[in-house]
Amino acid sequence: MSDKQRGRLSVKQIAELIGAEIIGDASIVVDSFASLDTATAGCIAYLNEKGYARFLAETSASAVILGQQYAAQCPVTALVVDDPYVAYAHVAQQLHPPELLVAGIHPSAVVSTGADISATAQVDALAVIEAGVKVGEDCYIGPGCILKEGSRIGSGTRLAGAVMVAGMCIIGERCVVQPGVVIGGDGFGYANDRGEWIRIPQTGRVIIGDDVEIGANACIDRGAVKDTVIGNGVIIDNLVQIGHNCVIGDHTAIAGNAGLSGSSIVGKHCMLAGGVGLAGHLELCDGVTVTGMSMVTSSITKPGVYASGLSAQDGREWRKNHARLRNLDKTIRELKTEIRAMQEKLHKL
Amino acid sequence: MSDKQRGRLSVKQIAELIGAEIIGDASIVVDSFASLDTATAGCIAYLNEKGYARFLAETSASAVILGQQYAAQCPVTALVVDDPYVAYAHVAQQLHPPELLVAGIHPSAVVSTGADISATAQVDALAVIEAGVKVGEDCYIGPGCILKEGSRIGSGTRLAGAVMVAGMCIIGERCVVQPGVVIGGDGFGYANDRGEWIRIPQTGRVIIGDDVEIGANACIDRGAVKDTVIGNGVIIDNLVQIGHNCVIGDHTAIAGNAGLSGSSIVGKHCMLAGGVGLAGHLELCDGVTVTGMSMVTSSITKPGVYASGLSAQDGREWRKNHARLRNLDKTIRELKTEIRAMQEKLHKL
Amino acid sequence: MSDKQRGRLSVKQIAELIGAEIIGDASIVVDSFASLDTATAGCIAYLNEKGYARFLAETSASAVILGQQYAAQCPVTALVVDDPYVAYAHVAQQLHPPELLVAGIHPSAVVSTGADISATAQVDALAVIEAGVKVGEDCYIGPGCILKEGSRIGSGTRLAGAVMVAGMCIIGERCVVQPGVVIGGDGFGYANDRGEWIRIPQTGRVIIGDDVEIGANACIDRGAVKDTVIGNGVIIDNLVQIGHNCVIGDHTAIAGNAGLSGSSIVGKHCMLAGGVGLAGHLELCDGVTVTGMSMVTSSITKPGVYASGLSAQDGREWRKNHARLRNLDKTIRELKTEIRAMQEKLHKL
Repeated sequence: MSDKQRGRLSVKQIAELIGAEIIGDASIVVDSFASLDTATAGCIAYLNEKGYARFLAETSASAVILGQQYAAQCPVTALVVDDPYVAYAHVAQQLHPPELLVAGIHPSAVVSTGADISATAQVDALAVIEAGVKVGEDCYIGPGCILKEGSRIGSGTRLAGAVMVAGMCIIGERCVVQPGVVIGGDGFGYANDRGEWIRIPQTGRVIIGDDVEIGANACIDRGAVKDTVIGNGVIIDNLVQIGHNCVIGDHTAIAGNAGLSGSSIVGKHCMLAGGVGLAGHLELCDGVTVTGMSMVTSSITKPGVYASGLSAQDGREWRKNHARLRNLDKTIRELKTEIRAMQEKLHKL
Repeated sequence: MSDKQRGRLSVKQIAELIGAEIIGDASIVVDSFASLDTATAGCIAYLNEKGYARFLAETSASAVILGQQYAAQCPVTALVVDDPYVAYAHVAQQLHPPELLVAGIHPSAVVSTGADISATAQVDALAVIEAGVKVGEDCYIGPGCILKEGSRIGSGTRLAGAVMVAGMCIIGERCVVQPGVVIGGDGFGYANDRGEWIRIPQTGRVIIGDDVEIGANACIDRGAVKDTVIGNGVIIDNLVQIGHNCVIGDHTAIAGNAGLSGSSIVGKHCMLAGGVGLAGHLELCDGVTVTGMSMVTSSITKPGVYASGLSAQDGREWRKNHARLRNLDKTIRELKTEIRAMQEKLHKL
Repeated sequence: MSDKQRGRLSVKQIAELIGAEIIGDASIVVDSFASLDTATAGCIAYLNEKGYARFLAETSASAVILGQQYAAQCPVTALVVDDPYVAYAHVAQQLHPPELLVAGIHPSAVVSTGADISATAQVDALAVIEAGVKVGEDCYIGPGCILKEGSRIGSGTRLAGAVMVAGMCIIGERCVVQPGVVIGGDGFGYANDRGEWIRIPQTGRVIIGDDVEIGANACIDRGAVKDTVIGNGVIIDNLVQIGHNCVIGDHTAIAGNAGLSGSSIVGKHCMLAGGVGLAGHLELCDGVTVTGMSMVTSSITKPGVYASGLSAQDGREWRKNHARLRNLDKTIRELKTEIRAMQEKLHKL
């Protein structure tokens, strides 16, 4: 975030990185990203969405990553690619690398002598690391993180701060975990014994793959008996709830406020939009997309888009439609009865 | 979680505990639970759902808890009961007891001299306990927990870590609170004075009964003037929001991502499924079940199941149905008009 | 919360504060608020909702704030105003002022020498304050709060505890932030490169205005390139998710469990009820109200009420209506076809 951490790249270097065609001066050097309308000299911008094309003519960026269709209109050096957004991601990672680590353990951290912490890892202020924990190379354990007994953090993984990893849980390599995340809380497992809830000990773990990203205050519960498993390259947004025994396939994306009930099995390359709910004990095959605020109540065996979310409309209109919906079955049966009656009458004529 | 904490029970002991009929060797000793398909020798498994019956023949478990209908097929010692899931819960609690406490206050914890902490309680690393706090016998106050002034924690209650209990709030006995929970945050109370929100001081408390379980990152707001009250034996899942002045009856269950607006009164033995919303200032009688992602907007006075959640379907089908729904009132009125016109025409014939 | 912090006001002083007409003894002194039914001597109560009028006759309060229509029935000193709820808010703020600060830095806090902390601010136990942070006058930085490098907290702002403010983020003056809030977590920004998610560095900030209130465990993500901006006087409830690049207008209210996808632009004086979802990359003009659990999928350009939330009904009724809804398009087309056929038949007669 501070200048010293930023990379500096020439347009030529960028073009090589993303396989772009250069139109303009390849020797220009840029050191940060900005949007077309707020960029200043030394910035590179990108144009991906049609809606932003109007800012291209007036941009003060030193260079712009864009598609062929906008190349002719670009007033500055252009880097032409097929997918400007993907190219942007790759370049931005070079220009804005993560903060450099300061290897070592902050004196205020409480670290068990029985923990195995790589010499290249950074453990920040007031972190708590219990016995049997293993922290890999180049990890960042942010301030206030708590790693309970026997948990393991793979190399290059960064826990931003105030992250709780419960006992025996495992996080893979190069993961990024935002603040407030709880990994390995007890699953919601109870048996109902004549009206009272009997707690079932949750003895499984959470096993998280490599290159997983987890948003702020999200929760991933430990398994009841088996483990909860998050595949490689999965991205999980803020305030997502993942119940015990869920299994999430590689490269699946789960957006904010979504909730997966226990034992949900989600395939690879799925996308669950914001506020989606899965009813639990069901299975989504690979390549399933569920749109915003939809609820999935049975397994899905065919890739594709699934939906049940309702879009808001004018409140008075909605009230009328809503009233009809609450009587829909009755209304349709009545309409059919009236139609039937008329058809018989007509038939007799 | 480690072997030393596990219990060891003979099949005979288990049968006595759960009132089971033994078919097979009563002297076998087991020390942990596992699922039918992953169990090894020394494990006990259970069979509750039909879908798992196919794993019974091949199980390597030393014993299985199951219902009468599967007893004949069980290849190992069988414990026959009416409700295998409830029996499982009771046995699992014996085999997997909670971690033993190490009584005392961790040297890194910040504990006010004005706090009253039982000698049998464990206060873990970097916990903060302010003046006037009372922590009962055999409590576990996990790492990073914050107990603000005047709060009280009943005997045997466990706060897993990073739990915030705000001033004057009271938690009963034998409760289990998962990481990240906030008890007693200010309620969302504001008066709108010509367009600007005027904060209303929230002076009530949160009063939580005995044997309550609260999931990770859940929030229970303090009352505005009166208290927010959670009954005995209530179970609350992750990321649940409970607004100020709510009153939740004994043994009610609230699943993940549910949200209760302020002054919701919920009876005993209710079940609110995942993502359910209560509109606030309403009352649910005892024995109400609300299914997933439904919204309750008025009081419910009769026990039973209530619903308004929509199940996802193929996206193209849904788009068409959704378009119809947004015009439902108009469409039905038009259909009725056309039918009326025909009926008149027919009448005149 | 403790008696010493409470204010004491005479009815005369209160009447001047809220512009009330006094009916009764103006010299009575009160020191706290209570509800009509639980008030004792020395308390002031208010009557706003019709439903509570039945408690007026029996109240033990020393005085009551109420509207003209109830003045005649009030058995104790009455303070008559137009809007009792707004009056209540103003008086309650005087009677229950926030806890007094104890200026200074708790010895257990970890504060960088490069931080600039006002001498009148209180930094509580085990807070972490990094280099380049600025904490203004009369701030309260509660226990376990983490202020990352370069963040700024305006004068009079209170962070209740366990609040994370990520690097470079800015909070205005007189804000109140409840426990567990994460400000400035990375936005959910990824490009999909042939099935794999490529992380996009999130280099924007969160900029929060003055007099903003944020509920427990809420999350406000930092911008991707530009900033996420929260206007003045905005109130945000528990467990709300605000995605990167959102812009929220002044005096807007967002209730619990609501989720705003990235780049949502919300106007001034809007109200988003509990569980509302915004689809992102859309704009709500000033004065828009969205009712509970509705989803907004396109921009709204006209002030007013918008809705798509469904109210729960009897489960069997709902199942039938739900089944009809899933075939609504087909059913309506069939009905229309049958009607068309009859109309033609009738026409030929």
